[in-house]
Amino acid sequence: MVAEVISVGTELLLGMIVNTNASYLAEQCAKYGYRMYHQSVVGDNEQRLEAALVTALERSDVILLSGGLGPTQDDMTKETVAKVCKEELVMHEPSKKAIQTYFNKRGLQLTDNNWKQALILKGCTVLDNDNGTAPGLIVEYIGKKIILLPGPPHELIAMFEGKVAPYLQELQEEVFYTKTVKVCGIGESQLETMIEDLIDTQTNPTIATYAKLSEVHVRVTANARDKKTAKLLVKPVVKELEKRLGNRIYSKKDQVTIEEVIVNILQKRSYTIATAESCTGGMLANRIIQVPGVSSVYKQGYITYADDSKSELLGVKKKLLKEYGAVSEPVAKAMAKGACKYAQTNVAISITGIAGPDGGTRKKPVGLVYIACCINERVWVKSYQFSGNRKKIRESSAINALILLRDCLLEEK
Amino acid sequence: MVAEVISVGTELLLGMIVNTNASYLAEQCAKYGYRMYHQSVVGDNEQRLEAALVTALERSDVILLSGGLGPTQDDMTKETVAKVCKEELVMHEPSKKAIQTYFNKRGLQLTDNNWKQALILKGCTVLDNDNGTAPGLIVEYIGKKIILLPGPPHELIAMFEGKVAPYLQELQEEVFYTKTVKVCGIGESQLETMIEDLIDTQTNPTIATYAKLSEVHVRVTANARDKKTAKLLVKPVVKELEKRLGNRIYSKKDQVTIEEVIVNILQKRSYTIATAESCTGGMLANRIIQVPGVSSVYKQGYITYADDSKSELLGVKKKLLKEYGAVSEPVAKAMAKGACKYAQTNVAISITGIAGPDGGTRKKPVGLVYIACCINERVWVKSYQFSGNRKKIRESSAINALILLRDCLLEEK
Repeated sequence: MVAEVISVGTELLLGMIVNTNASYLAEQCAKYGYRMYHQSVVGDNEQRLEAALVTALERSDVILLSGGLGPTQDDMTKETVAKVCKEELVMHEPSKKAIQTYFNKRGLQLTDNNWKQALILKGCTVLDNDNGTAPGLIVEYIGKKIILLPGPPHELIAMFEGKVAPYLQELQEEVFYTKTVKVCGIGESQLETMIEDLIDTQTNPTIATYAKLSEVHVRVTANARDKKTAKLLVKPVVKELEKRLGNRIYSKKDQVTIEEVIVNILQKRSYTIATAESCTGGMLANRIIQVPGVSSVYKQGYITYADDSKSELLGVKKKLLKEYGAVSEPVAKAMAKGACKYAQTNVAISITGIAGPDGGTRKKPVGLVYIACCINERVWVKSYQFSGNRKKIRESSAINALILLRDCLLEEK
Repeated sequence: MVAEVISVGTELLLGMIVNTNASYLAEQCAKYGYRMYHQSVVGDNEQRLEAALVTALERSDVILLSGGLGPTQDDMTKETVAKVCKEELVMHEPSKKAIQTYFNKRGLQLTDNNWKQALILKGCTVLDNDNGTAPGLIVEYIGKKIILLPGPPHELIAMFEGKVAPYLQELQEEVFYTKTVKVCGIGESQLETMIEDLIDTQTNPTIATYAKLSEVHVRVTANARDKKTAKLLVKPVVKELEKRLGNRIYSKKDQVTIEEVIVNILQKRSYTIATAESCTGGMLANRIIQVPGVSSVYKQGYITYADDSKSELLGVKKKLLKEYGAVSEPVAKAMAKGACKYAQTNVAISITGIAGPDGGTRKKPVGLVYIACCINERVWVKSYQFSGNRKKIRESSAINALILLRDCLLEEK
């Protein structure tokens, strides 16, 4: 079946916001086996939305509309869909009640135009909104499905996950099952070479690679009459990927990040960790601390941006700094060792590098970064040459520190 | 004039990437006075791209196409535009040379299909690509302009800024001049109330608000026959905004961030700064250190996630932690004072809070955050109750720490 996304909102046409709803809906449709050939954006304008909807009805089976369900005059998605489908709008009492409750709970004042949000197309399916006031709608028209979703991403995502995903799954004659294999420390082109034959020969399941910064997510998707059969189709392909990629795979779960994997390893070994950062200036710690429950392993971090700080906080010898420079292998090692010692942790990871735009030399160009890891007094160190601007170099440093940390933890045991 | 964006790429339809190019181009078009009524996304498919282009040519004056200029068989934007415009593709020798140089410089192997990127529509304007191999093109057809841009955002942005923006400006009979007023510490609705009458009554210049996390950017855009006149129209409105918003305005430059403003103030006063973070775990330092040249003011940072770390690194008294808890006003103050003392800086900023999802109590719910600022031994402290998930609470904490830091720096003098 073919799905299509129409995003409604003048703020999108003015570039005020990035259309993350479209990419989210596209990814979800792919996951549930829907093909997508078109996405479009129109403003809060009845005539243009009507034209977009009529075109979409000609070429797609499922049309996902987001936005334009608000209480103001500008919001006209429902009205336009009603017009196209030649259906009247009626008051939906449960939604009216839900809106009342929503306002009461927050001590907010209801105005008359709020009731507009409780209007629905006669005979449609109403999707309750647990995170806002605009209910979603599923409208069936000439055998097509029009799904109206609220614009705010957290409302849209929650409604999609809870109510639209099961509906879309149900709609398919076949069941789609996806397993995501998350790979770190191999570039996309290198990875593709390693699994090219699988990608080329597989039709069910299909294999798609999603490149991220220093990571690649490999998505294996099978369709079958039932979930059990689909799972059985996916299994041997994932096994083959595991065989080829070994411990470059850090997770086989869609939602799990590399920092979560690391925190998990640390928790299992009852290890504590400290961070020592120069050019990344807290970016690495920030990623680790984003993991809920990290307090059982993360103790403290040092941001030693100035050379003096490296000596004062981490005990890096001034001689070392003078002889090799702050961006060097010996200093990276001394930073990691010092962090372990002073924070009294099992593990420490350190980063020192030149993020630019200034500070580069011929011998030590912008993008040169050293990352060291110390685990129970054993020390690893690695040098990197990253490209891009200051932001990109710092981000590359942080993710590669996480990759190195994981590698060292795997090697240590 | 009416502009329209067509983004080409199957990866967009699969939700593999977010369409930041579309929002960038939309924002730029608004800036240069182009109206936009449509954006669309099609895959790497000749037939559907052709249909999208034909439709766009019927309703818009300028069509911005991004993506599909690569060297592979899949990339067919140029070929499709040539077909629609009934124009042949010819080899562009300067582009061929540039591609050769690009590969030589990087020691990469050229393959035959790379020359495809040097093909251009006969008679079009070629836009050199300083950051990649695919040149951009400007094609004129039946009085309309079709602008082909490369897909990678850093290539597209650089090409747009350097070559397309001046072209679009030139195309307009009138000159558009925009001034962005960046406001912090006021919510969007509160701000709109404060300037509602201006927004409603102004038609030239127009006033638009762009809400960011704890920030609002107010864009004032005027059009006139020449730049001088447009500037004169903008000036009194900006003055009025300054009168109403006072020092809530932190910058009147589009590109300047609040962290840059802060680093600038610190540099002017020859102040040094340290950070002390608990729940944000390096996020605040990370933002400050993103500013190029920050090494003249930023000395070091402490990530004191564990309670013990607050005592060991910042000298926060254990009694204080026991009596008030780690998330409290006295501890936030002690952290800031301790950071100043141990880092020997003029300024320190501290954050302690409950980012969740666990750790909240009835008295201290998730989202409760204390931020303190110490400048030359004078201390400020403020409490906040943020909403949202762990990520949102941490991000709100970091930006509000920057806002408080700026406020204190302004007050101190």
